[in-house]
Amino acid sequence: MVLADYRRAMLPAVEQSMQAIVEWVGGEDYRQLQEMLAYHLGWAGEGAGEKARGKRIRPLLVLLSTAAAGGKWEHAVPAAAAVELLHNFSLIHDDIEDNGDLRRGRPTVWKKWGLPQALNAGDAMFALAQIAMLELHPPVSAELTLQASRILHQTSLRLTQGQHLDMLFEDRAEVSLEEYWNMVEGKTAALIAACTELGALLAGVSDPERRAYHEFGRMLGLAFQAWDDYLGIWGDSALTGKSTTGDLMERKKTLPVLYGLERAGRFARMWKAGEPRSPETVPLMAAALEDDGARAYTEAVTADLTNQALAALDNAAPKGEAGEALRELVSILLRRDY
Amino acid sequence: MVLADYRRAMLPAVEQSMQAIVEWVGGEDYRQLQEMLAYHLGWAGEGAGEKARGKRIRPLLVLLSTAAAGGKWEHAVPAAAAVELLHNFSLIHDDIEDNGDLRRGRPTVWKKWGLPQALNAGDAMFALAQIAMLELHPPVSAELTLQASRILHQTSLRLTQGQHLDMLFEDRAEVSLEEYWNMVEGKTAALIAACTELGALLAGVSDPERRAYHEFGRMLGLAFQAWDDYLGIWGDSALTGKSTTGDLMERKKTLPVLYGLERAGRFARMWKAGEPRSPETVPLMAAALEDDGARAYTEAVTADLTNQALAALDNAAPKGEAGEALRELVSILLRRDY
Repeated sequence: MVLADYRRAMLPAVEQSMQAIVEWVGGEDYRQLQEMLAYHLGWAGEGAGEKARGKRIRPLLVLLSTAAAGGKWEHAVPAAAAVELLHNFSLIHDDIEDNGDLRRGRPTVWKKWGLPQALNAGDAMFALAQIAMLELHPPVSAELTLQASRILHQTSLRLTQGQHLDMLFEDRAEVSLEEYWNMVEGKTAALIAACTELGALLAGVSDPERRAYHEFGRMLGLAFQAWDDYLGIWGDSALTGKSTTGDLMERKKTLPVLYGLERAGRFARMWKAGEPRSPETVPLMAAALEDDGARAYTEAVTADLTNQALAALDNAAPKGEAGEALRELVSILLRRDY
Repeated sequence: MVLADYRRAMLPAVEQSMQAIVEWVGGEDYRQLQEMLAYHLGWAGEGAGEKARGKRIRPLLVLLSTAAAGGKWEHAVPAAAAVELLHNFSLIHDDIEDNGDLRRGRPTVWKKWGLPQALNAGDAMFALAQIAMLELHPPVSAELTLQASRILHQTSLRLTQGQHLDMLFEDRAEVSLEEYWNMVEGKTAALIAACTELGALLAGVSDPERRAYHEFGRMLGLAFQAWDDYLGIWGDSALTGKSTTGDLMERKKTLPVLYGLERAGRFARMWKAGEPRSPETVPLMAAALEDDGARAYTEAVTADLTNQALAALDNAAPKGEAGEALRELVSILLRRDY
């Protein structure tokens, strides 16, 4: 079985589990609340469908990790649903906090229903993520289910820590690379590490093996963010679905930008002069950044982190075809043609 | 031991438990995030202290219920901390959703730190509530801790359902009394019912007894809301700490207002004409509402619900001095001179 086969087997089960959980909102009185959640998850409303759902990478990581660690992935489906609901809760709130108009090519929840209702719908999605995790038991033991819940809750806290730093950094002129990585640990890596750790936990592995899966997810998350930052400036928008003017135009302090600022070269001078001020100057900024070495740097960092992720995966010693599928997922994710 | 003695014994333990949980946010990088939470909880910043903390009624209900159901309240402290953190999470988000400037006489978190950071701090408080509950185990068994978590998560969802309806009703000309009670069940009664149920659960009682405690909390919550609505129009602001022009001036669809609208008398005509438009006309509106019978109606409803809450408490057969303290708490709460 290759990755595509696993996806076909696993993702419908995750979708079904999430749908059953969202039904909890149920009842005629809460039709609009449920509709907001179903819209955000890509199930309903204009533009619903595969693309609007996102790639469901996180639940796939949970279930592949369970299988690769020697467990039955079917028992881990509630955990996979929980992490995807948690991820989507954070997106609904991030879109409010970042003033984002579009998500996966569609108007964001707060743009459609207004800020107060969207904020509250995000809270509902957060509660549903917690409810989903408890569906593990039975057949999973109460003790393991508690451990899984603890990982979910601690990860939720890490997400808010990462988002807190990300917002603080927006208002600051200077952000060090160390601060950047600290932010990424919370905002991106913590949840991906939770996915692989939860997968291993639910396979009933030893603590050291579980930690190895955690470390694999963490390095994958860091690499993923570095590559995402690369694509935000030099990516092919036709492939990534992201605007290529986006990150520079929004003056996001991504990895290449922070590297360029530290280099204090041509890019840094333009940036401090307030550029780019229009989409037309974005290519000039991107070229200056490349001349200052930021493109090569970001590629090298991504490659290094990818290798570390693969080494961490080796260390976890994933078994069988699911282990192969995990490797395939890493290589696809970090080229982003998935 | 009377209620005041229980408060003196129990509330410092709850405060200590919450403080230990909020420390989880810790570290120099997250000083501001922690400060926002400590501010909201009344521990730090201008105006910190007893009054800024609120009355901590919910944790008290948890611990008194545990003691009255024959358990050791000391073991239930993490659950008491969890419900108070959950309540405060919902207040941080409600203040954003309702555009509220003041909370317990101090500027709200979003007024002080801006909407995006406050929204995120609310999410952090929500995550901490979940983390707090898991601190039950040990000594509480994994199975009971899971049940307690399930109650917490389902209550979180009920809170978002209630808040959803409350916001929907703001934009509607007509709201029936049935719809009003449905909203109050989610927004107020669910969490108070969770408090008394959690208390009983952690004392290890039988399911019927646990349900009796739940029903007691639920009726108490409904009575509490009716009385809160009464005080929002006819209360003595010196005693309640609430503005007496508040609810009418903000055109809140509270119980007396909905009754007055159904009666279609003088009050309803003024309301439909867009009154009150200034604080000066509020007393005239309040007088019209009283003439239409809404004051007597709201008093009668509160008295009826209070009796139902006390009957439900009898049904739960609370034991010893803690049972007496619960009765004392009901009578104090519903006169609000506590």
